[in-house]
Amino acid sequence: MRSTPTPRMMSLGLSMRGTGYHSAGWRDPSTPDNAELDPGHFARVARIAEAAKFDMVFLADALGMRDLDLDREALARTARVSRFEPITLLSYLAGQTSHIGLVGTASTSYNEPFHIARKFASLDHLSGGRAGWNVVTSLSDDEARNFGRETHFSYADRYERAREFVHVTFGLWQGWEEHAFIRDKQSGIFFDPDKLHLLNHKGKHFSVQGPLNIDRPIQGYPLISQAGQSEDGQELAAETADIVFSIQNSIEGAKSYYDSVKGRLAKYGREPDELRVLPGLQPIVGRTEDEARAKFDALQALVDEGVGMAHLTSLFGDLSAYPIDGPLPDMEPKRSGAAATVIRLARDIARGGDLTIRQLYQALAPGRGHKVLIGSPIRIADTMEEWFRAGAADGFNITPATLPRGIEDFAELVVPELQRRGLFRTEYTGRTLRENMGVRRIGGTQQVTA
Amino acid sequence: MRSTPTPRMMSLGLSMRGTGYHSAGWRDPSTPDNAELDPGHFARVARIAEAAKFDMVFLADALGMRDLDLDREALARTARVSRFEPITLLSYLAGQTSHIGLVGTASTSYNEPFHIARKFASLDHLSGGRAGWNVVTSLSDDEARNFGRETHFSYADRYERAREFVHVTFGLWQGWEEHAFIRDKQSGIFFDPDKLHLLNHKGKHFSVQGPLNIDRPIQGYPLISQAGQSEDGQELAAETADIVFSIQNSIEGAKSYYDSVKGRLAKYGREPDELRVLPGLQPIVGRTEDEARAKFDALQALVDEGVGMAHLTSLFGDLSAYPIDGPLPDMEPKRSGAAATVIRLARDIARGGDLTIRQLYQALAPGRGHKVLIGSPIRIADTMEEWFRAGAADGFNITPATLPRGIEDFAELVVPELQRRGLFRTEYTGRTLRENMGVRRIGGTQQVTA
Repeated sequence: MRSTPTPRMMSLGLSMRGTGYHSAGWRDPSTPDNAELDPGHFARVARIAEAAKFDMVFLADALGMRDLDLDREALARTARVSRFEPITLLSYLAGQTSHIGLVGTASTSYNEPFHIARKFASLDHLSGGRAGWNVVTSLSDDEARNFGRETHFSYADRYERAREFVHVTFGLWQGWEEHAFIRDKQSGIFFDPDKLHLLNHKGKHFSVQGPLNIDRPIQGYPLISQAGQSEDGQELAAETADIVFSIQNSIEGAKSYYDSVKGRLAKYGREPDELRVLPGLQPIVGRTEDEARAKFDALQALVDEGVGMAHLTSLFGDLSAYPIDGPLPDMEPKRSGAAATVIRLARDIARGGDLTIRQLYQALAPGRGHKVLIGSPIRIADTMEEWFRAGAADGFNITPATLPRGIEDFAELVVPELQRRGLFRTEYTGRTLRENMGVRRIGGTQQVTA
Repeated sequence: MRSTPTPRMMSLGLSMRGTGYHSAGWRDPSTPDNAELDPGHFARVARIAEAAKFDMVFLADALGMRDLDLDREALARTARVSRFEPITLLSYLAGQTSHIGLVGTASTSYNEPFHIARKFASLDHLSGGRAGWNVVTSLSDDEARNFGRETHFSYADRYERAREFVHVTFGLWQGWEEHAFIRDKQSGIFFDPDKLHLLNHKGKHFSVQGPLNIDRPIQGYPLISQAGQSEDGQELAAETADIVFSIQNSIEGAKSYYDSVKGRLAKYGREPDELRVLPGLQPIVGRTEDEARAKFDALQALVDEGVGMAHLTSLFGDLSAYPIDGPLPDMEPKRSGAAATVIRLARDIARGGDLTIRQLYQALAPGRGHKVLIGSPIRIADTMEEWFRAGAADGFNITPATLPRGIEDFAELVVPELQRRGLFRTEYTGRTLRENMGVRRIGGTQQVTA
């Protein structure tokens, strides 16, 4: 008798921005005051996602205040300026949840591998093996200026440093072998020194002796995620990550990215399913199409023209000479580097939909470029299933317009429909994040090339 | 009618080492297995301290594995090698407690001010204003080697960097004025840009633009603690700290340190009571003197000769040529810098008590130099009261031999006796750590010289 093969399931993450992803989310009547800095709000949101059997909650990050380049008038109207630091918030949430993964962003450009390896190991022990590290290389000069530099590292330097950083971190996590700690009260032997290994890494960017002053993470390595869209970003993800978050608006674009990043895995001795691709998705769900549309329209009515225009200005430069109800002119992007991905995306949205300047800032307001799906549970599940079956996504990173409403609606209306279709789990089956997702750690069965 | 002046109360901290401070604490039958990495153990311990109305729990730290210089045989028998990272553990504990302060160590030598200011601000918001930062400059070359250096910074460099680091951190915490966040859903104004200030610090060691991407800490500044015993350490404490932890074995030594550090406050425009001095104290308490002595003897019987000798060797160099039951020879300390304080202290203990080598390692096993008090609740409260009234201490940092037993015993037997004498609170009266301790933040009413 052959056992029935386990059907492939979607992975679902919830990206938690306190006031939601929609630029006017904080103004929605359902959004709590102080949503960005109320720990109870985040605990509630994470527990809703856990009750819905989400794989993980996720925290994006930046190492400085965002939107500093906006003019004062627009700046005063943006809610992204204040937020919890991810590792502290996730450590708090470790005690407020029991099954869901806790994935946080930390930059390789303005950190030291010892601190990052140690903090994620600590979070892994605090959470019983539910930690994940989202590896980023940071975006802006405003971040660089908080760490003694005038400008951000160049693209090439950033990724070279990131690759060494990740390998050092992996090395530190291997400093203590499994079962190194004996703790035999009788004999007085606390641990087996044969299972302790100094790293003694000496590289171009880092020299790190090790070992960590904490036992190996429960998961071996915490889950590794990335969001690399560029060549080097995809390559680093293929070599070192378990999941990639992507920003894709069309199924064609999503499929092409999916194929591109998965096509790189063989080079590192990895199978296609060892790297999960999770595009961002903002569902605006109602019991009917009309209810969903009404929710969306109510949010859009709160979008401020000044904030919207300031956002476009930060992407494309000064647009004041152009009529707001006319087309986006063919201007050069104001920024380079990782921000360029977002800029190209915004351009494609404008061109693809033949949008005016006003329509473009309105289109970017809900998800800042992430795909927005407005409709009934059936319609949203249909699209998710289509992407999943077409090889455009292994799951989704949900970027709700508002919190807690965005996750309440999704958990109540869409998750049961996905479960009914056999696309999503109805129970957690594992103990750790890796067990629940079914992803073994890199290096657990094969060597990472260093 | 004049109101009765509030009687001066002791401040009490609990220093949490998972397996206790006694070097054989992990072997005690009452110590849980995996005590060093079980979050539930720390939650239980913190809640016991909170029920006893302690001001704070405290976490010491090092940025590398301790005791790496021990020989393998001794190393295998030491429990200090694996521990939680403080900021993650305290963030977890923020959700497991409601009143007690959460004070964690972070080094100014191997960190960036932006990260530290941000993480402690985040912890302060997670805990409703209960965060504290214990400022240290790190100790060893083994720590330096985890951060790209071969040797630790020199004493002078370390303190110069520390002073600038602390001032940058204070500056970052002032980036957002009080009540900067308006969050007016109606008008769409989220914050008042007049209340946002870039730091634009350019100094010898750091260049930091700011602002923090998180609202100012609830306490203004989280509580600042230090443990500086040296000249520069005392000076930094007098200028920037709210509490100092000290390591003192005699009331005379404690008084002299107390006077020395308090005598420096006027220079910074501060009153003597604005800096609280908390010597470490390890109480071994029993209902009777005999019961206390029996507890102590049982622990001492678990002390391993190899570990004890290795500890002395790490302080004084090779002692193998000297009879173990003879006196400590007059050798030069093997280490310099901050470790020298500990070495001098060990020497004084040996000379003061006319101890043999064996007696010295046994004397250091319980508290590694912290004062050990063995006896009935009355006897322990008597000594604490004597130190408190004599101007040798404003309170104590309790360093229990084992956990949870050490804090259970102290909470059950000694705290009620201190409360009966009017020396310690019976209820929390404030909302934040600063309110409970009655210490205003530095710079709240006067300027810190920068």
